[in-house]
Amino acid sequence: MAHIDLGVDEQTNPGITGLLKFRPETAKPLNELAEVLLRAPNSLSPGERELIAAYVSGLNECDFCYASHSATANAQLDSDATLVDQVVGDLDSAPVSAKLRALLRIAGAVREDGRKVTTELVAAARAEGATDVEIHDTVLIAAAFSMYNRYVDGLGTLVPGGQDMYAQAARRIVEFGYAR
Amino acid sequence: MAHIDLGVDEQTNPGITGLLKFRPETAKPLNELAEVLLRAPNSLSPGERELIAAYVSGLNECDFCYASHSATANAQLDSDATLVDQVVGDLDSAPVSAKLRALLRIAGAVREDGRKVTTELVAAARAEGATDVEIHDTVLIAAAFSMYNRYVDGLGTLVPGGQDMYAQAARRIVEFGYAR
Repeated sequence: MAHIDLGVDEQTNPGITGLLKFRPETAKPLNELAEVLLRAPNSLSPGERELIAAYVSGLNECDFCYASHSATANAQLDSDATLVDQVVGDLDSAPVSAKLRALLRIAGAVREDGRKVTTELVAAARAEGATDVEIHDTVLIAAAFSMYNRYVDGLGTLVPGGQDMYAQAARRIVEFGYAR
Repeated sequence: MAHIDLGVDEQTNPGITGLLKFRPETAKPLNELAEVLLRAPNSLSPGERELIAAYVSGLNECDFCYASHSATANAQLDSDATLVDQVVGDLDSAPVSAKLRALLRIAGAVREDGRKVTTELVAAARAEGATDVEIHDTVLIAAAFSMYNRYVDGLGTLVPGGQDMYAQAARRIVEFGYAR
């Protein structure tokens, strides 16, 4: 049970979904930020951006966000369903492009502390073809999930088991987006 | 100099301000979130909410955010200008209300990891009169500054010295808000 009375059935409104219903005033910019970062037109695909979100959530051990964004990444990436686990488990050996690996290294640094992003990490991403907007968006996705993870866990929201609910929610997000 | 070319004069667009100009698509929800959390009508005053933002930024050692939100807190709190430093330095002895102290303890836990927010910390805030919305907003302010701090530092933005610029910016925020 969440730390506060969300006024909703948590079983059908787990994780962040109950929080978004509890406080529509903050839900609006939170949903819009997710939509711009993860789904708006971008040279990084929605699947790649969801992978960055899932990677940060996995390292932060935010179970709800990790399950949600893994499902949404898997729904949009042309790869097997274990890719996100592989990236979290060992980024160096995971089967992703050199550019995405370099961007994920930046995301991992941001997750720890913004000051851990070095000129070397940025130069390495640029050497693999990353643009300024891609580097910017990677930093902001990692920063934003440092927020969403803390929001979901800080209020002690319910984390459903099983994967069906997450896969179903992922299909809705792929079809309708975050800011519906 | 920032890690990416922001296309602005960083001297006159330091910290987050250059980032907001670089990427207006993400600036919109980021500004709206700050406006709702820190300035919209609330039983916590704008000064109290800015103090929570400054406290998290101080513990994260994000110099730009700490100077900015300290100045904005000071501009709106009826206290001497060292209050924010006192709160960051030793929360237990700082001259704040029992309710605000309990909320700041929750904010400090969120900053570390959402899972550090215990039922005891929440019960202590409630015992001092904190409402569910106040507890929610405290968690989300702390989570949001875990994002803003990483965004500003992760892109290596310029941090001006001196306090004049921050005091001037604080006056503009008090008058016009974040989402102008």
